[in-house]
Amino acid sequence: MKTLVINCGSSSLKYQLIDMETENSLVQGLVERIGIEGSILTQKVEGKDKYIIKEAMPNHKAAIRLVLEALVNEDHGVIKSMDEISAVGHRVVHGGEKYSHSVIINDTVLDSIRECISLAPLHNPPNIVGIEACMELMPNTPMVAVFDTAFHQTMPKEAYICPLPYELYEKYGIRKYGFHGTSHKYVSQKVAEVMGKDIKDLKIITCHLGNGCSLAAVKAGKSIDTSMGFTPLAGVMMGTRSGSIDPSVISFLSEQHGYKISDIDELLNKKSGVLGISGVSSDFRDVIDAADKGNERAKLALDIFHYKVRAQIAAYAGIMGGVDVIVFTAGIGENSSLTRKECLNGLEFLGFNIDDEKNAIRGEIQEISTKDSKVKVYEIPTNEELMIARDTVKLINK
Amino acid sequence: MKTLVINCGSSSLKYQLIDMETENSLVQGLVERIGIEGSILTQKVEGKDKYIIKEAMPNHKAAIRLVLEALVNEDHGVIKSMDEISAVGHRVVHGGEKYSHSVIINDTVLDSIRECISLAPLHNPPNIVGIEACMELMPNTPMVAVFDTAFHQTMPKEAYICPLPYELYEKYGIRKYGFHGTSHKYVSQKVAEVMGKDIKDLKIITCHLGNGCSLAAVKAGKSIDTSMGFTPLAGVMMGTRSGSIDPSVISFLSEQHGYKISDIDELLNKKSGVLGISGVSSDFRDVIDAADKGNERAKLALDIFHYKVRAQIAAYAGIMGGVDVIVFTAGIGENSSLTRKECLNGLEFLGFNIDDEKNAIRGEIQEISTKDSKVKVYEIPTNEELMIARDTVKLINK
Repeated sequence: MKTLVINCGSSSLKYQLIDMETENSLVQGLVERIGIEGSILTQKVEGKDKYIIKEAMPNHKAAIRLVLEALVNEDHGVIKSMDEISAVGHRVVHGGEKYSHSVIINDTVLDSIRECISLAPLHNPPNIVGIEACMELMPNTPMVAVFDTAFHQTMPKEAYICPLPYELYEKYGIRKYGFHGTSHKYVSQKVAEVMGKDIKDLKIITCHLGNGCSLAAVKAGKSIDTSMGFTPLAGVMMGTRSGSIDPSVISFLSEQHGYKISDIDELLNKKSGVLGISGVSSDFRDVIDAADKGNERAKLALDIFHYKVRAQIAAYAGIMGGVDVIVFTAGIGENSSLTRKECLNGLEFLGFNIDDEKNAIRGEIQEISTKDSKVKVYEIPTNEELMIARDTVKLINK
Repeated sequence: MKTLVINCGSSSLKYQLIDMETENSLVQGLVERIGIEGSILTQKVEGKDKYIIKEAMPNHKAAIRLVLEALVNEDHGVIKSMDEISAVGHRVVHGGEKYSHSVIINDTVLDSIRECISLAPLHNPPNIVGIEACMELMPNTPMVAVFDTAFHQTMPKEAYICPLPYELYEKYGIRKYGFHGTSHKYVSQKVAEVMGKDIKDLKIITCHLGNGCSLAAVKAGKSIDTSMGFTPLAGVMMGTRSGSIDPSVISFLSEQHGYKISDIDELLNKKSGVLGISGVSSDFRDVIDAADKGNERAKLALDIFHYKVRAQIAAYAGIMGGVDVIVFTAGIGENSSLTRKECLNGLEFLGFNIDDEKNAIRGEIQEISTKDSKVKVYEIPTNEELMIARDTVKLINK
């Protein structure tokens, strides 16, 4: 049984084909510049050369058609016919309050995803386009939607209701939804498995630190809070996003300095965070390099990032009444020993110590706390695609 | 040596006369409706009837003139002549980055306070008017400015630099300033004194929970972080203020629902928080009553308030590498046993237990943790006026 996993952005598309008997990913691909001049597909298969197709792809349907061709390509593909794809799992960013679980896609589901566009105007439209294109090209293959928000739908009201007039929740759906749910779910389940524990007995803090950053408090396998909010802008500082700030800054810039709201929105989403403070880059590797060379603002940006993650970890230990295990994942969380060490620095009173040798290992499932630590710390590479494929298979086998 | 303490709002003025030999407050007064029809002065002196003056007070100078008359009034006053007032201490909300300490007021200082008007457009102007009026009426009495922001000027950069483009700090002074500094300073010093410890050896979390709410992390006697930010809107949820929120909520309301920025500002400052969620009141007593009677949204508002304070306490334990003592102060913090208990509920892993009998005591200096608690918890009534008077005397005696 092979499952295709699709993650559609506005002009890009990531895909994997996963063999669900072994849970191995057979192929990883990326299509870029969809609808823009210079469209390009890059496909990687273990043991084969990279397969690159440069061909006009005016829309997502054209892109997906090429993806399917690449998958069955005699020299570069991994399957003989499209019939080998038994299901498609689609990443969908926003499922609103309706979806606390993944779901088989039908017209009603598509309508619900459309209804969430106002909550995720940048993300849900390309997700929908991707689903529709797949449905046209593979009309007999079941499709499943896996929502980034779903795992966090178990949050209690005190975590998700905003400190605003309650009517704004009732009228406009303004509340905390949380994102990166598939990743937080995957690594929290994985760490319980690696520890040989029942997840029901664990208080887990998952730190997804990548381009976007979010933390989640996972108690007994359920997300009870997460740092992103109504949108992925909230929470800890990120590469280019501010995270949560004093909301008065917006009216100050608007009313005293004439900034347009759309410009402030752009500034908070694309010019803030590590990039904004360092003035160097949003890529942590560049910023760490610059800090090493003595750039004070690069060092400050890293200090602030670590500081905010540290405070958030402690806050989540607080709301869970303690913590059993802290997990780092995603690009930075998996790969930067410095980031892990600094984000934990000072939190040893919670009950752990870091083994520097183990923490030097990158990108692997790895306990990085010392043996005698009461609280455990792990790095766990995330695998959202596998999680999407698992949910997909579970649903179509029902 | 008697010190007059003045706290000027836009249409109100609070004052106390404090005997600095005994540190006793001899008189507490309040002037309301300055510049508005129905001006009224109310003065309380222990052992005497309330003294009320209803008389037109077109401006703060007229109000202060009446205050001085009330202080020397033969029947209701406490001093024989104005000469007994050896100094005046003024509460000033915003001292910007310039003032990390209280200062004797001269023209240069007044100019600096004027320069901070853009950072505190509602608060600094009446503070200045009050100072000027006192200088005119008591030209030979030394005046001291005590800033709400000063105590927090010891914060490190990682706590006060916002996750925004660094230029916004350099150009407009956008950073975390923090407020309630005089209160956080007073109760942190007081708790060290009550515990018989050197404040240099303590990690203290001070929770000022009143109309406005802020927490501070006080390490070795210095504020190293506090929950209010660029303005007093940030941090934990309050009676009518939202505290920190996902900044995208503002652009969502503005761009998708046509809200004006000035209306959003009003909404976040005056219609949010406990009032906004409960729909009942911003007064915790009313909301607790309503929750007791089964009002679900009142209960939710309280749950969210407790939840946010709890998370903030844990976060500050995190950034200090642990905590030795947690202090509750101000209207709610001093008087609500329920609030204290619920804000601490689940945090026992930090090293304390609450003694319910002691916690039932209101408005007194009181340890509320059990004897065997490693981490101590106290309620300490705040006394900003005394702190202002102490700073005033210290400066003029130099």
